Parts: sequence; C-alpha cells; structure tokens
Amino acid sequence: MRKDFKTAVAERRSHYSISKKTSVSDQTIREVVDHAVKYTPSAFNSQSARVVLLLNQEHDKMWDITKESLRKVVPADSFEPTNEKINSFKNGYGTVLYFEDQSVVEGLQEQFSLYKDNFPVWSQQSSGMLQFVVWTALAEEGFGGSLQHYNELIENDVKSEWNVPDNWKLIAQMPFGHPESEPGDKVFAPLENRIRVYK
Amino acid sequence: MRKDFKTAVAERRSHYSISKKTSVSDQTIREVVDHAVKYTPSAFNSQSARVVLLLNQEHDKMWDITKESLRKVVPADSFEPTNEKINSFKNGYGTVLYFEDQSVVEGLQEQFSLYKDNFPVWSQQSSGMLQFVVWTALAEEGFGGSLQHYNELIENDVKSEWNVPDNWKLIAQMPFGHPESEPGDKVFAPLENRIRVYK
Repeated sequence: MRKDFKTAVAERRSHYSISKKTSVSDQTIREVVDHAVKYTPSAFNSQSARVVLLLNQEHDKMWDITKESLRKVVPADSFEPTNEKINSFKNGYGTVLYFEDQSVVEGLQEQFSLYKDNFPVWSQQSSGMLQFVVWTALAEEGFGGSLQHYNELIENDVKSEWNVPDNWKLIAQMPFGHPESEPGDKVFAPLENRIRVYK
Repeated sequence: MRKDFKTAVAERRSHYSISKKTSVSDQTIREVVDHAVKYTPSAFNSQSARVVLLLNQEHDKMWDITKESLRKVVPADSFEPTNEKINSFKNGYGTVLYFEDQSVVEGLQEQFSLYKDNFPVWSQQSSGMLQFVVWTALAEEGFGGSLQHYNELIENDVKSEWNVPDNWKLIAQMPFGHPESEPGDKVFAPLENRIRVYK
C-alpha cells in the first residue's frame, strides 16, 4: 500500500548515511525520474528541466570527480573531513544530476521580453519542484537521498565525462541509496511566525 | 481513499476556471498550508518560506488590488481582457501568497559567506517546492489552482493591506477554488531529449 501525498511529503528527509544495498531495479529508478520530469510544472510549460541519472559505477565516477576537484582547492592537511563527506555520497547507489536548459530560458526571454528577468527565477523554482518530486518519489521506493551543490566546482568535468550539452546548466546533485540509519529529529520553527490567515 | 504520491503529482494541473463553491472547511485549507510549510525542505533547514492565506472576501480584496494596479499600467481601451483574467482569479475562494523572508536569507549569507551567492537561489528553489506541495495538496482536497506572478506590481499594496513585514519578499500568488471545468490536454516534450541514464 502506497502512502498518500501528505504522508509522503512529511516522511521525506535528508539521508547522509546510504549504501549500495538495494532491491529496486534500475528500471524502477528510471521510471521514478521519468514520471517526475514529465509531470513537474514549469513556467509557460517550457519543460526546461534536464536530468542525468548516474547509477552504480557511473555514480562512483561522479563522486571521484567531485573528490579530485575538491582536492585542488582544499588544503591537503585538512582534506580528511572532505574525503569522508564525499565518500558518504559515493557509498550510495545512484546520483540524479539536475540541469536547466538555458537555451529554453533564453528562448522565453526573447519571446516574452516583458518577463525577461523572471524566467531565470521561474526556472530555478521549477527545478526546486522537480528536485522535491524526485526526492520524495525515491523515498517512496525506499531510498534515502540528499541535495548537494558542487555545481561550479564540477560542472566542466561532468559535462565532458557524460557529454552533457553546453546549454544545460548544472543546478544540483542528489546522491541516493539504501538508508543505513534514521535521520535525527528535525527542528521546526513555530508556524505562527511563518503563516498568516485572513478571512 | 487518498491517492498515492505519484498519482497526486500526475493529476495536479493549472485550473483557470474556478468558483467559490466549496464544501471544504477553512480549517482544512489552513491545515493543508500548515503541513506544506512545515515539511517542505529549505537550505540549511532555514525555513525561510512565509505564507499569507487569504480566504473569501480577503481573497476578493487581493484581486481588486491587483486589478486597480493593472488599471494604472494597462491602456484603458485594451483593459477588458485584463479585467476578465483578474475576474477569473477573483471567482475563486482563496489565494495563497508566497513570500521568502529576506532577513533569513541575508542571515545565512553573513554566516556562511562561501555560499553567499547561492542562498537567494536556494530560497527560490525552496519556494518552488512549497508552491508545488500546496498546489498538489489543494488538488487532493478537490481544489483547482494556478500560479500567478504580479509581484512587483502589487507588493507594496499587499504589504500595507495585510500588514506584511518589509523583509518578506513576494514570490507568487496562487488563486484556488472549485474547478469548474477540466483543463485541456497537456503537451509533453519527448523525455528522451530531457533525461539521460548512465549505468
């Protein structure tokens, strides 16, 4: 029995302790991503989101690339915590790379110049929606994931490794795998400071 | 019986033909918004999202404000389509106003200067996630809604009408109500142009 929408939303968490143990097929993971990309809304139905799904050894390669990029900028004598952090992501089974196609965004800017400044913002909002949908749908399949942002550091290497078009802008990375522990309690700010109702 | 997450995601659509007919209580609407604001993730769990929920006559007032703001910038002899558009939103029962608290974003920028340029972007992504969660959860309650962006045009008037703090930045407006017709078919771009899998 699948959970309902609100329960799925409430139960999605960041998982940093993940492993390659999984009984979910690559095909099912692919379907999760396909479904999310298809149905997540975008400004003017522009469908600017692009995704590269890396599984298994391709996932490992992704985090090796990130580690070597970090090695160039983090001092050698303080690299160990960084090394451990990246290994915790590499311990997972797959990574979803989120991109936004800038040629689509620029096309909208040319076509609707009145909203020129808004399209890049709406593109980011739509990417956020997609990240959330994939994250929650992966959790529904029993995966734990988190959202990482090594964008500028790794974008060129990622693009040449997986032959990603130049106009795809890297927005986020979501490593996921079998959750090896439960996340701790989450702290919530009082809702009365965040929501006002007038009726 | 509630739908599962994937079905709810697939069935959320933009509804422009909406009415005030509803058997859903204001309390239930409030709970939908509370739940979404509580559980939607944000960078560093900063919980920067703020919401003003306007129901009934307060909702009407919101679209009257928007209409009068538009009247100042749209030529009188071409105002009728604008008038009709705004009336279609006003025909609904409520509006969710989405804000991001800039004092939270700026606090993060000061605390973590390495990510200074990222926090405003992550704030927009998180707002997108929240918009999606509320939109889909309202659809689960039988409402139809859409996402509107009259931000710059109405922000000052909205803030003085509902006494919204200055540091809350207006991001989007979501009018919702009883759906009076089914949306047309949605056009989907081929997924093979949007998703690549390596394994």
